[in-house]
Formats: sequence, C-alpha cells, structure tokens
Amino acid sequence: MPAPEPISLSALLQARDSGQTAPPEMVAQASEAIRTKDDDIVAFTHVENRPAISNGAPLSGIAIGIKDILDTADMPTGYGSEVFAGHRPRTDAAVVALARRRGATIIGKTVTTEYAFFEPGPTVNPHNTSHTPGGSSSGSAAAVAAGMVPATIGTQTGGSVLRPAAYCGIAGYKPSFRLLPATGMKHFAPSLDTVGLFAATVTDVALFADLLTGRDLRVASDPSLRPADIRIGLYRCSELPTADAAMQAALETAIAAAQAAGFTIIPVEEPDVLKKARAAHSPLQAFEAGMSCGPDLALFEDQLSQRLKDVIREGQAMAPQAYDTARRDAKRGRMATAALFDDIDILLTPSAPGPAPRGLASTGDPRFNKLWTLMGTPSISIPAFSTADGLPLGIQAVARFGDDRRLLKVAAHLEKVFRTAA
Amino acid sequence: MPAPEPISLSALLQARDSGQTAPPEMVAQASEAIRTKDDDIVAFTHVENRPAISNGAPLSGIAIGIKDILDTADMPTGYGSEVFAGHRPRTDAAVVALARRRGATIIGKTVTTEYAFFEPGPTVNPHNTSHTPGGSSSGSAAAVAAGMVPATIGTQTGGSVLRPAAYCGIAGYKPSFRLLPATGMKHFAPSLDTVGLFAATVTDVALFADLLTGRDLRVASDPSLRPADIRIGLYRCSELPTADAAMQAALETAIAAAQAAGFTIIPVEEPDVLKKARAAHSPLQAFEAGMSCGPDLALFEDQLSQRLKDVIREGQAMAPQAYDTARRDAKRGRMATAALFDDIDILLTPSAPGPAPRGLASTGDPRFNKLWTLMGTPSISIPAFSTADGLPLGIQAVARFGDDRRLLKVAAHLEKVFRTAA
Repeated sequence: MPAPEPISLSALLQARDSGQTAPPEMVAQASEAIRTKDDDIVAFTHVENRPAISNGAPLSGIAIGIKDILDTADMPTGYGSEVFAGHRPRTDAAVVALARRRGATIIGKTVTTEYAFFEPGPTVNPHNTSHTPGGSSSGSAAAVAAGMVPATIGTQTGGSVLRPAAYCGIAGYKPSFRLLPATGMKHFAPSLDTVGLFAATVTDVALFADLLTGRDLRVASDPSLRPADIRIGLYRCSELPTADAAMQAALETAIAAAQAAGFTIIPVEEPDVLKKARAAHSPLQAFEAGMSCGPDLALFEDQLSQRLKDVIREGQAMAPQAYDTARRDAKRGRMATAALFDDIDILLTPSAPGPAPRGLASTGDPRFNKLWTLMGTPSISIPAFSTADGLPLGIQAVARFGDDRRLLKVAAHLEKVFRTAA
Repeated sequence: MPAPEPISLSALLQARDSGQTAPPEMVAQASEAIRTKDDDIVAFTHVENRPAISNGAPLSGIAIGIKDILDTADMPTGYGSEVFAGHRPRTDAAVVALARRRGATIIGKTVTTEYAFFEPGPTVNPHNTSHTPGGSSSGSAAAVAAGMVPATIGTQTGGSVLRPAAYCGIAGYKPSFRLLPATGMKHFAPSLDTVGLFAATVTDVALFADLLTGRDLRVASDPSLRPADIRIGLYRCSELPTADAAMQAALETAIAAAQAAGFTIIPVEEPDVLKKARAAHSPLQAFEAGMSCGPDLALFEDQLSQRLKDVIREGQAMAPQAYDTARRDAKRGRMATAALFDDIDILLTPSAPGPAPRGLASTGDPRFNKLWTLMGTPSISIPAFSTADGLPLGIQAVARFGDDRRLLKVAAHLEKVFRTAA
C-alpha cells in the first residue's frame, strides 16, 4: 500500500481562487477519492450521491466529512450505534449549519465509535490497515489522512480529536471550549464535549478554522513571529514516563529542534493541582454520561455495548458529591493552568502514548489529552514524526484558554521545524 | 374564579407514605385535575391517557409535567413551534429519564414559548386569566399554580423559571449550573440553558430537588438555622429603581420582616463588574442562539416568529470578538460574585419587575434574573406577596454557586416569615 497522501486545503483553495479548479470539480474529486479508497479504509458511514455544492462562499468546493455523532437533517445519523441505525434528525447540528453557511459541501458522515466512547467502528488506519485509526473521531481522521477529503469535523470528550489525528499523521485541532458550538451532537459529557477539526497540516486546519468561524486564525506568513519571543514549555506531566520509547524520542527530537530554531524552551513540572484535575476527568465524565446517556440505558439497554453500559451505570451509581468534588478539582485546575501560562506560551506534550496500537479492538488511550479537554484549553496534534515502521507520532501543543490564534501560529512554525528534524 | 390552590408535594408524599393514598390514586387525581382545569388554563400541550405509574420509588405517584422544550421519546415534543408539531424524539431528555428513574409519572408536556424564547404560547395566568403566566416555562408554572400537578420541570436561559414562578405565585428554583442535566433540551444558548423546578412552596420544591437528585436538599425542621447567623444582602442592583412600586414595597416588607425575624440585613451595592456582566447576557445569548438555532433558521425560516429570527440573525451577524468579550465579562462577573458571597449568605432581589403584565402578548421581562443565570448561581423565587388586585409578587433569593442547600433552607424560612408579613 502506498503511503497515504492527504489533500492540502490551502493548496486546493489557492487552486480554486486562481481559477484552476471550481467547486463542482473539487467535490467530484472528493467523491471519486471516496469511491476508490473507502472500501479499504471504511471512514464513511454515509456518502451523498449528489451533494449540494455552493459557489462564491469561503468554503465553496470544500467537501467535508462530518463525524456521525453530529446531527444532519438530510443524512442518516447513527451515533455509532445500532440503536440509531437509519435515524434522521429533524435539524442539523449547529456546526454543520455553520459549515453549510460558509459554503462547505457536506459530502458524508464519518465513522464514530459508539456514542463517541470506546467501542470501535470498522475504520482502519490509512498508514497500516491492521492498526486502529484511533477514536472516537475515527472516520474523520482517516478520511483526511487517506486523501479522500481536505477537512473533517469531529468531537473530543477525552482525546477523540488529538489521538486519531496523531495516529493518522494529520493535524487535529481542539479549539477553546465553546469556540465551536456543540449543539446537535449526541452529548456524552456536556462540560467536556468539544467540537474539533481535522486537516492535513496545521496550516490547513488553521485555515479551515478561520474560514469556518470568521475568526482571524489562519497562519499567515507573518514575519512578526520571532521564535526567541515564544516560550515553549516541555510539560513533564506525571504520565510522561508511561509514553512509548518512540514517543519519548520524538518529543526529545521535537524539543531539540525547537531549541535549535531559536524558541525558548522551559521545562515545566506538573503542578499537583493539575495531576488532581486530570484524575477528575474520569469521574466527571462518568457522572455526566450517567445523566446524558441515562435515557439510552433505560430505553435501549440490549443494544448498547458492555463498556458503554458500564460507564453509564458507574456514573449513575456515583454520589453527587463525587461529581461536585471533580468539578471543584477541575476549577482549581483551570486557575492553575491560567497561572502556568503566565510563564510560558505553548506547552508541548505527547498527543498519545505512542503510535496507533495494532488491531481494531482498542482505539488507544486518551491519557495525554483528557486534562486539556477538561481545562478547555486549545490544543493541536502536530504531525511530523513517525516510528521506524512508518506509523505516525503526534506532538501535542497546548495554549492558554482563548489563545487559539497563537497556538495555531506557533504550531505551524513548529510543524516545519519538526519535519526538517524528523 | 376561586383563588388557585396548588398541591403541596410534601403533604402528598406524607399521605402516600402513611398509606392514606397510593400512586394510582395520586396520578388519577392529577389526571382529573388537568381534565377539569386545563381547558381554562391551557398549561399542557399533551396529556398522557394512561401514564406509567411506579411503586416504591422516591417519586412514585408524583405526576409531573415536563416543559415541552425537553425531549420525551413517548410523547410529542414540539418546542413551542409549528416546525416540530408532532415531533417524536428517539430518546428522552436526561432530566426526564432521571425523573422516571426516581419513580415520577410523566403525565404530560407543558406549554413553552417558541424555542423557549419570547413568542408566547396559549397558557394564561391561573390568578387572572387575562394576564400572562410568564415564560418561557409558562405551562410548568401555571400547571402547578392551578393545582393540576404537584411539581413540574422547566428551563431558564434568561428568567424562564423565576419569572413565571413569581407571576403564578409558586416556588421556582434554578439550581447551580449543571446540578441538573440539560442534555435533550432544545438548546438556545448552551452556556446559559439551565434546568429548573417548580412546586407550590419553597419546601416543596426543595423536597422535589432532593428526591430527584439524591442530594441532601430537603428543608428539614432544622433548629440549627439561627437567623442571626445568616447574612442577607439586599441587592441594590442598577435595575432596582425600575421595578414597579408594588414590587419595591414587597421587597421592603420582605427585608423588614427578615430583620424582625432576626436575620442580619446588609445592603449590597452592585459592583460595576456585575452591572457589566448583566449587560453581557444579551450578546452572549444572541451569539449562542445564532449558532444553536442557525440550523432552524436555515431549514425552517418561514415557520419561525419574527422575534426569533431577529435574535438568531443578530447573533449570526455578531463578530466572534463580541462573544469573547461577553464571555470575559461573564467570567469576571463570576469572580466578583464569589467575592460578594464572602460577606453575605443570601441576596434578595425582585424575581420580576412587578406582577404578571396584563395580556398574553408579552411574557414579561427577565431583567432581574439574567445576571444570575449567567453567573450560574442558584436562585429561587419565594412566593408570599401579592398586589392589591391579587396578583402574585415573587422575591428572588440567590446564593453562592454550589450553595443550593443553604439557599433552599434559608428561603423556606423566609417564605414563612414573608407570609406572616404579607
């Protein structure tokens, strides 16, 4: 199998804007790529035969896939569960409507794990089909990595954007909490559920975010970014020693390359309060899942996987005080995170413990992501490194809440630096 | 028309637990009350003919109405809009499933304004049918006030629990943000959308909250509450002078009665940062509504009211920076609110500018509620006072985030004090 070649959103839009291509042709190319590739990858649960194509809008001609945890009024929405097979919501998710408003073509729905938790779907990793693409936004990551579409939308409650992006060797961006609207997703844990974006590179995903939101997020060739002014923290979290040797080596190479490129590197020890906040993620998620998915357990018990039922029941059995404690720990964590970003601009940490695990039974582990989901801080998986076997390794960059623009700008610079070093 | 007589949840549960009544009889009584009263009040959009009745659970026999902005899998869910006439969601809202798990009987759906915004439904005020019951939880408030059911569930994004409770002369309780789950409501502004409860009195609504959540929230006859230990702040917000004379008089009477009962009264001037936070509510709400209801504007434009379309378009036209500014103002407000509660325990302020306005075209004004919705602090409308014409006036009590138990306990004490003084 040849190495997958993602489509550059930036290049595609340049081609469109210079008249070399046009929306109908762009969408037709995506349709054709899905037709030829998706039998092997299984990134899509549904593909539109005659997708609506706009003209003259920022995202005209850009065919995007929508994680099938997000509602679409004109396409089946299954939430990765047989319970919702053939389900057709009355209206779209907010971010889907936003994408349509900006001119994007919704070309289909991408595979999600069951309810965006851990029970995997059929998608395989485009870099090695015997490995998981990661989850829960499995199809959104694989569809971009395999070069079927230039951009997709996913969600993250633990590590469901960063991890599949890392495993599939593309950029996955989880914006600051509520930068993108989550209304119309099948909620699992509403205070964690965050909409995120996938594209080939950091520059591409930043452009996608910019055009989707109307915020100034694109990575311009901006001479004002002087590496020496950027303080990069190597985040020595308590989980760091548990990362694979390949990941540890990649992170070391990344830090060395950043330093060589002139960035200021500052090792950051993990404050106890953030270790505690990370530990609060699971109980908080379980309690909210017990509430949010309580109706499903009551109505569709026989059709839910054992691990989904287990987490819902765990949440329902929890004392409300345990939830309150988790929320308090999270709040203290957010204050500590804000303080931490007084001294640094960007934190670097693994996007995942290593490359995509072999097999499809597990979508991997979110232990390096869930703290930042809980903190609401923007984070991105920078693709650059890989193992000797050619499996991608992602480096996660994190910034202060609301500092999405700087995150994307610095991460794009780092991506170039890392690729040279990889 | 005789003065409406709400049903006491506490008395009903005592009767059940002492064997004087039983769940089938209790539910039958609610059905009969709806049959005889709701032609005049129009609190319900749907009533179950054969509602499911449990036995042996905390809320067994308690027939409750669910605001029709919350999903029910077994009943039509219309969100107050012709767009969703006859809509049947695949699953229940989280709080509906929670109520079922605790044994409550979902007896029907109650009238909401369109999408829980301002376009009114047909419900009238049980105290005077030529007046609005308030909104957006119009039917939930009126159904309790008219004595049809002992408790109902509603939602508040601006003042949609406190205001109709006040207008209808019952207790309306908006818990701390996320104390009750909002998943499965038709979201309008997710960072504001809060599930709340209605019952005849503060003691009743506290008991409902206790049995629904499993939290220790009921107002026990607790001799440990010494009024002298409770610092009550009279909140002199910048809106206070705009309240009706009747409301200003009621508030003065309330404060004097509380002082006479031994509570410590402390006048509290509104910090500028909270005035600014109140002003942030509207842009924040509009921006989020522009996102959350964007799909509906795109798909169902012709079926939405003008004022709903206006707010969605207003939100969609806003610069994202204005939203970020509103969120920052809200965050600063939350910090100032926390500091304010270092010096006092409970704030008192009007639940509404006055009694229910005449006519059904307007559901009244949330200007005294929206700050506390945005702050996420628990608040409750204490029923006790009324105008010379017999229209109810509510006094709003507010406590620190997470301090729901103290709020309910003190409010129950104040309710007795106020009733004696009224």
